[in-house]
Amino acid sequence: MRRKTKQIMIGSVAIGSDAPIAVQSMTNTDTRDVDATVNQIHLLEEAGCDLVRVAVVDREAGLALSKIKAQIKIPLVADIHFDYRLALLAIEQGVDKLRINPGNIGSRDRVKAIVTEAKNSRIPIRVGANAGSLAGWALEKYGHTPKALVESALEQIRILEDLDFDEIVVSLKSSSIPFTIEAYKMIAQEVDYPLHVGITEAGTPWFGSIKSAAGIGALLVSGIGDTIRVSLTGDPVEEIKVGWAILKSLELRSRGPVFISCPTCGRTKIDLERIATEVEKRLSHLTKPLKIAVMGCEVNGPGEARDADLGIAGGSGVGLIFRKGKIIRKVREEELVDALVNEALELEQRL
Amino acid sequence: MRRKTKQIMIGSVAIGSDAPIAVQSMTNTDTRDVDATVNQIHLLEEAGCDLVRVAVVDREAGLALSKIKAQIKIPLVADIHFDYRLALLAIEQGVDKLRINPGNIGSRDRVKAIVTEAKNSRIPIRVGANAGSLAGWALEKYGHTPKALVESALEQIRILEDLDFDEIVVSLKSSSIPFTIEAYKMIAQEVDYPLHVGITEAGTPWFGSIKSAAGIGALLVSGIGDTIRVSLTGDPVEEIKVGWAILKSLELRSRGPVFISCPTCGRTKIDLERIATEVEKRLSHLTKPLKIAVMGCEVNGPGEARDADLGIAGGSGVGLIFRKGKIIRKVREEELVDALVNEALELEQRL
Repeated sequence: MRRKTKQIMIGSVAIGSDAPIAVQSMTNTDTRDVDATVNQIHLLEEAGCDLVRVAVVDREAGLALSKIKAQIKIPLVADIHFDYRLALLAIEQGVDKLRINPGNIGSRDRVKAIVTEAKNSRIPIRVGANAGSLAGWALEKYGHTPKALVESALEQIRILEDLDFDEIVVSLKSSSIPFTIEAYKMIAQEVDYPLHVGITEAGTPWFGSIKSAAGIGALLVSGIGDTIRVSLTGDPVEEIKVGWAILKSLELRSRGPVFISCPTCGRTKIDLERIATEVEKRLSHLTKPLKIAVMGCEVNGPGEARDADLGIAGGSGVGLIFRKGKIIRKVREEELVDALVNEALELEQRL
Repeated sequence: MRRKTKQIMIGSVAIGSDAPIAVQSMTNTDTRDVDATVNQIHLLEEAGCDLVRVAVVDREAGLALSKIKAQIKIPLVADIHFDYRLALLAIEQGVDKLRINPGNIGSRDRVKAIVTEAKNSRIPIRVGANAGSLAGWALEKYGHTPKALVESALEQIRILEDLDFDEIVVSLKSSSIPFTIEAYKMIAQEVDYPLHVGITEAGTPWFGSIKSAAGIGALLVSGIGDTIRVSLTGDPVEEIKVGWAILKSLELRSRGPVFISCPTCGRTKIDLERIATEVEKRLSHLTKPLKIAVMGCEVNGPGEARDADLGIAGGSGVGLIFRKGKIIRKVREEELVDALVNEALELEQRL
């Protein structure tokens, strides 16, 4: 059961409560380079990114925000450290959300100035804590523990709440999955704000994808998580693809085809890996949900994949095309991929 | 908290209770081809496979088992469908475990013959059910539901228990993660046998790895799972690598280095993806546990990765080498990877 939360709006995208779990990423271009940043955001949009964050390191980057926003479709989030003037500038430039920790920007007046403008412009704020940069007092009181991470985040939340601001999203980041899970479970008991979940510094695309899937997956299965960020060292487009793969696997959202294919075994007589990879590639541009099975075995394949909208099962030299468990026709092995792809394209048209 | 189970031995490998969660795979060679099968098992062993299963499709494959077993180090599991004579032959040939469903092999006498020989040879049996081939009565009574999957497996378990056999491992396979999780949670309440977990027909190496990590990860985090099988369409060695990546991410077992690296952002001034991927590759042969960080930012890097045994943080043209959060020295960017790799090799020697 998904945890009940307050729902907040980031531009036109709702986060929390029963809204779809949003997939997000962060650009790794220089934000001051408007063209490069917009180009990357367009690729992210195409891959299914629901909202995008950019780093605002100085006034020039802040001034680029309105130009970037004018050229993209998805909500834009400004990531700001320490400097309250950049936060005010970002709001003025029309961003849809701020990522800033009010505890790091100095006097109450500065925080109040940001909160006032955020309220006027109906912009939510994400606050959070990172296990690598815990509040000193929390570290002293609780040690390097999930509790210290939660208390560090609660401190930020309370600063905003004291100013009567509650359009808040919360994140708790750590590179340890058990640490992260414990912290999110704890904060889910404390506040009803939507939670941004992810495993930070997850690593290279291969290891980081597996680690993110395990950590984010476990949280989502326990009902926690309203927007997800997969952090990989590399192209942010890959982060979006992995994010979608996680949501699709868990049957929380659908986008384009889902593929199932059996592990090959001593009984497999066709080159299943090549066939499955080719089918996945040739149908990856589809956006309607279709369940497609690539099975090695004529005897068990159609039955084991009876819930697939479409599937193939290979035998020796010949294969079967089946739909919802029923065999449609037999084709020669070398025509199997083409036949399946054509059936899928036709089916997509009819949906 | 990990679920308490009965512990069973598969050869010298303990499964269940407080034994390490075993990583397993299945060969996709023709079992009758002893050389090819042994070669593949050697690669699996090298990658960290704890036990391996082979398909036994006929008498010739059955007769190959003792030859295969003589040449490998890890326990050998025979996967048999329907034919009780192959099961008896496999036991005679010295396998360490059988995967067979007693409900599929006919008369009680045949089942009794297998159980008697398994007892004599102290060989456990894995039974289970697959959502794609549910027992007819269960399907009729419960529909295509997790409950039907659990009842199908319980039927197999009861056949063995009635013959006073309890050296049992249980699996419940489905290609749907929510379906799988519900079924495992249900059966965990019913029996105390160790559970073999996995998501079947997970797909191509990319999607299948993410799906397996999300599904197996969620189960392990909830304390369920004593041995894991990642099912990918392709090379079984990849299944073992992904299995280990899941266990390492969840901090359930350690083997070789664990890498963390930050997502690049607008602040990153070095080619972090190249550096991280190169470090991962050059240190992948190490087997002692080391936590290695590759961070983009000199200011936050050493602090955020303070629990890393060793790390680098890149700046512009120059980088830092740090250990447990303390900076050891500065090096030029082009020497960063070599310097880190050398430090790691030295550290591995001293451990």
